[in-house]
Amino acid sequence: MAVFQKKFRLSTKGHCDVQDITPQVERAVEESRLRQGIVNVSGRGSTLGITTLEFEPGCVADLRRALEKIAPENSDYAHNARWGDHNGFAHLRSALIGTSKSFPLVEGRLGIGTWQQIVFCDFDDGPREREVTVTIAGE
Amino acid sequence: MAVFQKKFRLSTKGHCDVQDITPQVERAVEESRLRQGIVNVSGRGSTLGITTLEFEPGCVADLRRALEKIAPENSDYAHNARWGDHNGFAHLRSALIGTSKSFPLVEGRLGIGTWQQIVFCDFDDGPREREVTVTIAGE
Amino acid sequence: MAVFQKKFRLSTKGHCDVQDITPQVERAVEESRLRQGIVNVSGRGSTLGITTLEFEPGCVADLRRALEKIAPENSDYAHNARWGDHNGFAHLRSALIGTSKSFPLVEGRLGIGTWQQIVFCDFDDGPREREVTVTIAGE
Repeated sequence: MAVFQKKFRLSTKGHCDVQDITPQVERAVEESRLRQGIVNVSGRGSTLGITTLEFEPGCVADLRRALEKIAPENSDYAHNARWGDHNGFAHLRSALIGTSKSFPLVEGRLGIGTWQQIVFCDFDDGPREREVTVTIAGE
Repeated sequence: MAVFQKKFRLSTKGHCDVQDITPQVERAVEESRLRQGIVNVSGRGSTLGITTLEFEPGCVADLRRALEKIAPENSDYAHNARWGDHNGFAHLRSALIGTSKSFPLVEGRLGIGTWQQIVFCDFDDGPREREVTVTIAGE
Repeated sequence: MAVFQKKFRLSTKGHCDVQDITPQVERAVEESRLRQGIVNVSGRGSTLGITTLEFEPGCVADLRRALEKIAPENSDYAHNARWGDHNGFAHLRSALIGTSKSFPLVEGRLGIGTWQQIVFCDFDDGPREREVTVTIAGE
């Protein structure tokens, strides 16, 4: 058994910028040379989300529209009122979606579907530099 | 430390078919003979969800109703418009719920509550054959 | 590679009582003396949630308001009708948020952001004693 860990960085535009990070995660999996285990993909911060999606413009638009309904950008948020911030919606979306997901490593490959991509969603209200950590506990 | 991995298959009806997969996960845990660790349960695909629920018809009905409100089957989806598909709602639900969950392995048993079952939700718009992977990193 | 596991208990008020459990998780991380790996934080039960949030009263209020919109306490639930219970909303919220999250262990520290706390949400309809398990697969 071994642990492999690798970080990568990401430049985002915020406002529910959805980016496909499957290639970066797959590269970490290859570098690890591990064959079987659990792959955790985590973003650092409280205004982002990590989930899976068929990464095509339609699904991305549908996700953005749904989140705008659940947690609209322009609404009254106690977080904004308290701190003079404008990203209450982003904190809320992050708590609902979660900032990390785990996947199986199967015969040296990420165990996800053909149309299933790992996506990083930056919910914040402007461009950000983000850090993602891939950790594999495997053999 | 060791890694144990096992796949099982599932026939679903789609349309938010919710199935209790706790027995299959518990069987994998027993086979592993591991006593302590992390158990990851992952479905392969972009139109399914894995979560926990008290598996009784009332809770299942409540979950289905809530998801129908958040992401109605019959609504306008950019994914459908773009590809002539009819499962935009299923992709959206999957991104919101997530396709995998992890649990502790405690003294050889799955660390979940008495009324807490692990459920597979097939959100797609018809019957599907599904594959679930149970991965344990433990000792 | 090693597995470290520790449980801690929590007294909650229910009704979406949100508590910061980062200190307890960090203590487990320190005790483990592990430097790198995956940290899983899991609550036992079907009416709770674990996620991350900037733990300040504004964000907590925003989360509570959003969940009250998605799954109102006082609404008709099939679970309640069937069992004479009053916590159908709590089961639903738990299935949507999830009862566990995983994080990277990086150079002996929990890999979360400065404003990102791990929170335990008790959705049930009254005070509860809860058990949380921290499991680290690392080295």
